[in-house]
Parts: sequence; structure tokens; C-alpha cells
Amino acid sequence: MRLNPTNISIIRRLLVGRNNRPLKSILSRLAAPDLAALFSHLNNVEIRNLIDALISIDRSHEALLDLPDSRLEELLGRLDDAQVQAIIAQCPESDGAFLLALVDDYRKHSILESFSRQKRTKLEHYLNYPEDSAGRLMIEKVFTLPADLPAGEAIDILRMRSREESIYYIYCVDKDDRLIGVVSLRSLVTAAPEKHLRELARKDIISVTPETPEDEVANLVSKYDFIALPVVDKSHRLLGLVTVDDIVDVIQEQATAKIYATAGLQEDDRVYTPSAKSFKNRIPWMFLNLILAAIASSVVSLFEQTMAQLIILASVKNIVAATGGNTAIQTLTVVNRGLATDDFQFITIRKALLKEIFVGVQIGIILGITAGSLIYLWKQDLLVAIVICISMILNSIVATGLGAITPIVLKKLNFDPAVSSGVLVTICTDIFGFFSFLGIASLGLKYLPQIVTTGL
Amino acid sequence: MRLNPTNISIIRRLLVGRNNRPLKSILSRLAAPDLAALFSHLNNVEIRNLIDALISIDRSHEALLDLPDSRLEELLGRLDDAQVQAIIAQCPESDGAFLLALVDDYRKHSILESFSRQKRTKLEHYLNYPEDSAGRLMIEKVFTLPADLPAGEAIDILRMRSREESIYYIYCVDKDDRLIGVVSLRSLVTAAPEKHLRELARKDIISVTPETPEDEVANLVSKYDFIALPVVDKSHRLLGLVTVDDIVDVIQEQATAKIYATAGLQEDDRVYTPSAKSFKNRIPWMFLNLILAAIASSVVSLFEQTMAQLIILASVKNIVAATGGNTAIQTLTVVNRGLATDDFQFITIRKALLKEIFVGVQIGIILGITAGSLIYLWKQDLLVAIVICISMILNSIVATGLGAITPIVLKKLNFDPAVSSGVLVTICTDIFGFFSFLGIASLGLKYLPQIVTTGL
Repeated sequence: MRLNPTNISIIRRLLVGRNNRPLKSILSRLAAPDLAALFSHLNNVEIRNLIDALISIDRSHEALLDLPDSRLEELLGRLDDAQVQAIIAQCPESDGAFLLALVDDYRKHSILESFSRQKRTKLEHYLNYPEDSAGRLMIEKVFTLPADLPAGEAIDILRMRSREESIYYIYCVDKDDRLIGVVSLRSLVTAAPEKHLRELARKDIISVTPETPEDEVANLVSKYDFIALPVVDKSHRLLGLVTVDDIVDVIQEQATAKIYATAGLQEDDRVYTPSAKSFKNRIPWMFLNLILAAIASSVVSLFEQTMAQLIILASVKNIVAATGGNTAIQTLTVVNRGLATDDFQFITIRKALLKEIFVGVQIGIILGITAGSLIYLWKQDLLVAIVICISMILNSIVATGLGAITPIVLKKLNFDPAVSSGVLVTICTDIFGFFSFLGIASLGLKYLPQIVTTGL
Repeated sequence: MRLNPTNISIIRRLLVGRNNRPLKSILSRLAAPDLAALFSHLNNVEIRNLIDALISIDRSHEALLDLPDSRLEELLGRLDDAQVQAIIAQCPESDGAFLLALVDDYRKHSILESFSRQKRTKLEHYLNYPEDSAGRLMIEKVFTLPADLPAGEAIDILRMRSREESIYYIYCVDKDDRLIGVVSLRSLVTAAPEKHLRELARKDIISVTPETPEDEVANLVSKYDFIALPVVDKSHRLLGLVTVDDIVDVIQEQATAKIYATAGLQEDDRVYTPSAKSFKNRIPWMFLNLILAAIASSVVSLFEQTMAQLIILASVKNIVAATGGNTAIQTLTVVNRGLATDDFQFITIRKALLKEIFVGVQIGIILGITAGSLIYLWKQDLLVAIVICISMILNSIVATGLGAITPIVLKKLNFDPAVSSGVLVTICTDIFGFFSFLGIASLGLKYLPQIVTTGL
């Protein structure tokens, strides 16, 4: 069953009534993403009733975990402590810790207090891993078998376990829980029953530690086509598993973060984010841009006399800045994406830089000549035509050079190049564009006034 | 073994010699992504020798398929027909068709001719699916079992198959090959041996057709956390399987495409792309930008007399355009990302639009007042201060309105909003910004000249 306007209205009606048997029956037939989408159609009272119904069929955490983080945070804020506690009690500790991290500190403590010492310790254990690390992402219930078990017995054990976490691979461990290797279900099923798991296992497996950042985990999973990646501690004991479905979410988030970075946006600023939060997120960036624009203006104002002498300069100077900015952004985007997706394994940095500058300068020359010719046709002003051509070519060199080098330098200095490089490069290109165009023009006005007055 | 400078130089030396036993031994111990990275360290002769060695250990297609598409295309161009043919002969038809799609038409035909009629038909069959569709992405070798088979016998059959495609789920089909349901290996292993697969199978499975676009497949996989998705024809016969590892690549490509779209770049324009190709890719976009900048300039030139009268207008007009442009881009990026990641299931379009405009106008008011005050402090010119404040507020309304509405309208008209909305919105904001600022200023100069001359 899929979510549609009809069953939304049925559910809303059922949420009012006393008898929630039919409600539970509908809810248990909806997939988790549809349950998540349901929340945005309900008011606060309905949401709280829905959560109670979901708790009673043990699906509240499934539904909640399919919400975007910021929506989830907001929704948890609307529930009372008893509900949040009931939800966390039902879900695996890794998910519980994830939910706890989204409620405010005071509430977090009082909810933690309500759990048994054992559950509390486990939750706190997860909360201690760094944010956005493999530790926070992993599931801890990994199905393991001793390495010296025969395949036949392994199958019997598998047969007896009925409600385990979904099993992707079977991890073989020694008696100290150290990871020995991995056996695929298929090779287990197809092996002779007396063969030991140790012999069936692939031993050259790639693993991560709980501290490994999640984007590094994502890159490994997408590079090597893994379905799951084991997480081990320093003595190689198996702690948990990061699965590909969580990695798909990480990759989507990474993509959003990169797209957002160029516009100076925070990752949690989405269409459904409350306006007060969006405002707070965006205003610093806009102030930064105002300041940068003011700096560029003050460069322009150095040439007010030149512009007053030849007012057309004031009209066309933007062409230089606009094309320079676009050239820089293109180079920058290609180099940034190359850094993010590890493209530099296929080319050296030096060759890539030279190529970018070469392409940018070619474009600069063609556009410079075109712009110069257009200006001459439009205004019959040879000086301005020559000046715009020269300054656009110069600007293309600066733009591609900065566009290519800035992200690489920022990355070497351990900044995220996607966040800071765009603003830096654009303001430098703008200032250089105005400076070169108006500067060359004022030199021209001083030394070649006859071109201006006679139009040659 | 991982790729490092030492074994690269060993491999290069071995590529010269006659005896390629040690070479094969090293190559068979490297993972496919490392083999792919190896190519960029070699010259043409070495590449051809490496390909021969990889063909002889049946790993050429593995290595090649881990290259980025444009690199792969270039590399195939350097091999001779016999090599390309040998590679395609070794790999599954879906991959073979993918490789064939990358060589030029003349070559494609002569290679196709060299295969048996059966193989040729299969390859052509794949090539007939639309580009970037599930059909092109799927593997055809799906492990299926008849729905009325008992679980015990199913396990015996599994045990006998030793070198199948990797098995994720077991698909049950009726006698006409129509998909009935899916049995997980785990539920098979844990079931009573006499139970029929039909009873074990989940029947409410989501499937796609070969024509389904790959980004739709990617959204399904990431929304429902699938590991594999069956592809069926109109009469529900099982044709193949799209697996999550291919989807991870699709998601990465989508992300690149979205990031690139805002900079007017083609997806295959990467750091390692030959400069001639990059140039050809980028020049149309830069010409478009030149034209747009020229249009904006011609709007400005309408006000040359106003600027000549009060030259400071020429210096500060960029502040209006820059902040307007940034406001528009922020709104646009949030709405575009919302459309791409299906965020609108969590909020209605109307509410989202109102929120974006509300946030943008708040920012516009604050920045307008700040900019006005700064200008007054800097130049003691009250007219310009008032004009910039008013025009920045007006511009923020236009910028957020256009930024929020344009992508939604483009999407409704079936254009990709990520590609075209940025340019459209930016040029409109620029023109409106210049027009409102210089227009209001010239009205002010006409009717309130005393403010200018006296500074109040």
C-alpha cells in the first residue's frame, strides 16, 4: 500500500476515534518512508496520537528515522518525554543514540536517567563517538560465527536464528572476537558441510575504525562496491557494521553539502526549515557578501574621475567582472569536484592546473576579442574596445589561475575547499577585473587621448 | 595489496620484459579500482601491454569499468580493434554493450560483426535501451528458482551452482518467467525444508521497467534501502537486476551533474578531460554569459547621464546587483535541492514559497539599511543612501520571488531546473537591480536635488 490523499484522510479520521485497531492495520501496511511523509499532513495532536499508535506496533523508530534530520529534530521537540523514551526503548542503541543527539541536553539527561544502567551505558558509548563517524553510523548487532566452525553446523545455526539483524555477510571471529575474515552466505551454502569457515573466508578485507569519518567510509564503499563494511577497534576486534543503505544517505548528504557550499548555505537549511532558522543561517553569508561588494565598490570609486571623463566605462565594466567571475567558477568547480571524487588519481595536479589555465586563457582571448568588437560596433569607441579586450584576457589568466590553485591550497591547509574557495576567488577576480579595466582605461585616457576624441 | 609508487615502478619494468608470469601475479592481487588508477601512470605502449596481460588473466573489463566514462572512452580509442573485441568477449553483455557505446560507430559495427550471431543479438538488445535507463544498467544473469520448489531442494540447487553472479535475493518465477516474489537467502536457510518458496516469498516487491530512467531507479533504491531492484517487462517477466553498487555510482554522477549545472559545465568535463574538449564544452556557456552581461550593461548605459551627474552611483551600483544575486542564488539552491531530493513531500509548495520570500525580504531589509548607513558614513550622500536602501529591499523581493518560483515553473514545464534556473534568475536580478537603483536615483536627482547638493 502506498500513501495517497484517500488513505491520508482515512488515517486522519481514525486518529480522532477511540478504536485504533483499523488504524494499526493501515499503519502496518505502509512502508517506513511513507509513514515519514505522513507526518507533514498532520497537526500536533494528530502527530502525538500517530506516534502512540506507531509505538504500539513497534514502528515508531522506523518512521522517524526516515525523516530528514532537521524535521526529525523539530518533531521530537513536539513529543513529550515519555514518548521519546518509549521510542528510544524500542530501537537499536545506535539509532537510539542518534535520536538522543537531536534532543536538547536537559531532556537528554532526564531520558537517559529513565533507562536501565546497561542500556544507558550502551547509549552513552555511542554518543561518545565523534559526530559523522563510522561509530555513529554502525549497527552493533553483527552476526558472527567462530572461524573453526564447520560449514554444515554454521547453516544449522543460521536456521535457528529467526529474527536477527539482516545478514549480508557472515563474519568469522577468533575466540577473542577478533575479525578473521568474511564468508558470503552463498559460499557457505555451496560449500562442503565439513569445511571450516576459516577456509571459506576471504581474509583480505577492508575495515574501518569507529573514528573513521563517514565520508571516508562512503568513498571506500563506493570505490570497492561493498554492501557492508566492518568496523574494528585497534586490536582488530569486530565492533559493528556500516551498511550500504546508510552510505547512500551519506552520499546524498555530501552532495547537498557541496551544492550548498557554493551558495554559502548550511546543510540543514531546506525548504521545510522554519524561517527563523533559515534567516539565522543565511544572514552571516549575506553580510560577508555585502562587505566584499563594498570592497569591490571602493576599488571602483578610486577611478571615479576616469569614469566621469568617459562615462561608458561605468556601463561596461561589469562585463569584465562577470566573464572573469564565470571563468573562475567553472575552473573552480571542476577542480573542487576532482578533489571530492578523487579524480586526481587519474592525472597529476601539475598537468591539471596547466590544462585549466590553458582552457581559461583560450576562452578569455576569444571573449575579449568578441567583447571589444561589440563595444566598437556599439559605441564606436576604440579606446574602450581595446581596453576591454586586454583586461578580459588578463582577467582570464588571473581567474583560471586562482580558480585552479585556491581549492588545492585550501585542501592542503585542511580547509574544505568547497566552502571557502568560491567567495575568495570571486572577490579577487572582481577586484582584479575592475582594477585592470579601469586602470588600463585611465592610462589610455592619459597617454592616448586622441583615440578617444577622434574615434581614430 | 594496494597500489603504491614501488609497485607501480615494478609493474612498469615488468611491462617491458618478455616473461609476464610475475606481472600477472601482481596484477591478480590488485583490486579493480587500483588497476584502473594504474593506467594514468603509463604511456601508450605500456597501456597496450597491460591490457594484453589483463585480458590473459580475465580482468581487463573489471579494471576498465572502474575508470570514469570519459577516461574509458579515451583509453578505448588507443587500443586496437582486436583488443577491444577481446575485452568485450570476456565481459557480461550489459558491460560489453556499455563499452561498445563508447567507441565510434564505424568501429562498433566492425567489432559487432566479429561476434557470433547470438552474442551480437544480445549486445544489440542492450544498445537498444535508452541511454541512462535501468535497461542499460541491469545485469541479466539473475538467479531465479520456480515458485513451487521446496526450500530444501532450493538449497541443494544453490549448493551445486558454484560460479553464478553474486546472489542478493532469490527471485521466484512462475513457469512463464513472470516474477512472483523474492526470498532472502536468510529466510531460505532458516525455513523448514519442505516449505514452498511461494510461501516464503515477499510478494509486494517494487520493480522497474528497462525504460525507467536511472535517476528514478536511484531514488527508489535510496528511499527504500534496497540492495537490488528487479527489472521486468510489461507482462511482468523478470529481465534483470539493478544492484546498489551501480546505483551508488549513479548517485555520485547525479551529484556531479547538479553541482556542474550551476556553473554551466558538462558532466564529462573533469580535471583529466583533454583541454580541447573542455574548451568546446565551456565556450557556449561563456558566450551566453557575455551576452547577458552585455544586456545588463546596456540597461546601465540608459542611465549614463544620471551617473555622469552623480558619479558615485557608478561605484556603488554593484552592491545592489551583488547582494540581489546572492539572495536569489540562496533561495534557488534550496528550492532546487528540495526538488531533487523530494523534500516537498514534507512541506507544501505554497508554504515553502512564502517562507523563502519572507526570509529573503527580512535579509533585504537588514542589508539595505546597513548598506544605506555605510554609504552615508562613507560619502555623506543622503540621496544615494536612501536610494540604495530602497532598491536593495525591492530587489530582495524580486530576487527571492524569482529564485523560488523559477525552478518550480521550469520543473512543471519539464526542464531540468538545476541547469537553466541559475542564469535566468541571475540576469533578471542584475537587470532589475541596476534598473531600480539607477531609476530611483534619477527620479531623486530630478525631484529632490536639494538633498544631493546640501547633504540635507
